[in-house]
Amino acid sequence: MTKKDKRGDTALGELLRVPGGEPVDLSSYDSGALPVGPTRKKTGLKSTGRTGRHLADLQERLWAASTAGDRRRVLLVLQGMDTSGKGGTVKHVIGLLNPSGCRIHAFKAPTPEERAHPFLWRIEKALPRPGELGIFDRSHYEDVLIARVRELAPREEIDRRYDEINQFEQSLADDGVTVIKCFLHISYDEQRRRLLKRLDRPDKHWKFSPSDIDERALWPAYQEAYEIALERCTTPYAPWYLIPADRKWYRNWAVSRLLLEHLRALDPRYPKADFDVAEGRRRLLAT
Amino acid sequence: MTKKDKRGDTALGELLRVPGGEPVDLSSYDSGALPVGPTRKKTGLKSTGRTGRHLADLQERLWAASTAGDRRRVLLVLQGMDTSGKGGTVKHVIGLLNPSGCRIHAFKAPTPEERAHPFLWRIEKALPRPGELGIFDRSHYEDVLIARVRELAPREEIDRRYDEINQFEQSLADDGVTVIKCFLHISYDEQRRRLLKRLDRPDKHWKFSPSDIDERALWPAYQEAYEIALERCTTPYAPWYLIPADRKWYRNWAVSRLLLEHLRALDPRYPKADFDVAEGRRRLLAT
Repeated sequence: MTKKDKRGDTALGELLRVPGGEPVDLSSYDSGALPVGPTRKKTGLKSTGRTGRHLADLQERLWAASTAGDRRRVLLVLQGMDTSGKGGTVKHVIGLLNPSGCRIHAFKAPTPEERAHPFLWRIEKALPRPGELGIFDRSHYEDVLIARVRELAPREEIDRRYDEINQFEQSLADDGVTVIKCFLHISYDEQRRRLLKRLDRPDKHWKFSPSDIDERALWPAYQEAYEIALERCTTPYAPWYLIPADRKWYRNWAVSRLLLEHLRALDPRYPKADFDVAEGRRRLLAT
Repeated sequence: MTKKDKRGDTALGELLRVPGGEPVDLSSYDSGALPVGPTRKKTGLKSTGRTGRHLADLQERLWAASTAGDRRRVLLVLQGMDTSGKGGTVKHVIGLLNPSGCRIHAFKAPTPEERAHPFLWRIEKALPRPGELGIFDRSHYEDVLIARVRELAPREEIDRRYDEINQFEQSLADDGVTVIKCFLHISYDEQRRRLLKRLDRPDKHWKFSPSDIDERALWPAYQEAYEIALERCTTPYAPWYLIPADRKWYRNWAVSRLLLEHLRALDPRYPKADFDVAEGRRRLLAT
């Protein structure tokens, strides 16, 4: 493929989609890559801004369609190591949309009540309703990531969860949910830089905890857990996309474009009036 | 007061706050007024954009403070007649903030489950958590507005609700919730214009229902219901603000400034590090 081809109109999703069912070697993916699209921050930011306006338009159509019974909706799942930019993606990409149509959920360590239920219980409660864009900052994947690395459940149970997740995501797809899963891929060095920056700035201290360094010490185990999840849970109805995320502007550009491609494919339409427009106008003018 | 005084630095809240405990005559308030601030759309939009950046900064501080135990949060209540711009305010004002810190709830006609509970039950479930900005598009006030006009409950019960609401809002204030209630005030003529616009544009038909005209026929009854609510439920801890809303840009400017004034008064601070920063840096650099 020539460089020109790469910069062509190939759908971004095809380029970033993880091949399902085959072993994934994260070290073979360059987290600083710019595989397609803008190559400079300035043009990247501009492009993301333009994409935002298209997204907001499609989001309104999706919502409007839901008022006429269209049950379709979108679920964007954001996963990645600490500092990979899950929160930043919400701020800068989802921030381009109408907040009233977004249902955002940041999953923390499960509460005692949540732990008393199957691991998908709290996920189901946070799903987007018809017409909405749901955003998960962390998700059910934590139950095969930190749960695997920290041995929070027996290994056999963890191993069963991949299939449970696939079945769950299949049921979502069957119910009209477009599932878009993004792994925000950063390098070990980039994480160190970002954590150091949090230490350098007093207004970022609140984002830091010494336990972040303990988690970082488990980097290889986490990468392996991600590799297994990406291999076992990339399906035609709920693929994983691997987002090169060392550059924040590129990460935002890529996620916004992925969203745009999926919303365009859904092609939501404003519903036709189910009332007599001329009659409505006449009645109104008489008031 | 001279014109210059009016354009001075008088806190917007003081100007727009409804005097509590006295009868309110909505017809004496000009819904097209520009009582303070920008007088032209262009400067108004610019000013709102600048306000948005300050809001986003204060919002982050509020959230950061909550991670260190600060339980304070803000609840913005939006009420107004159909087309008054509740949804537009969410889109254009709340859209300036980080969506992850906003908890937005649009209240519709109560479900059978909600009707089986006291009217504040569904409200309590939608409240913002510490550090969040909650936004209610409609609210518990519907239970003394449409409920009064449409006689959805006995008059004695409606009459009891004002006190219940005041007690509820007092309990919110005691729990660290800054309650900001905005009545988006539009004129009868402006509503006709906006409804006609929805009929003129096929991409707005979904926002229209012939029942909107039936509701409009009850305009005087609704205005009276609002007057009673504004009189009885403006308290020092949860005042009503009357927003002149015939001009959308001015409505957005005013709501954004009101939010800014309240967030500035809260003066949330980034928490101090509760760990040894130098030690953290040393450990990190060793990884």
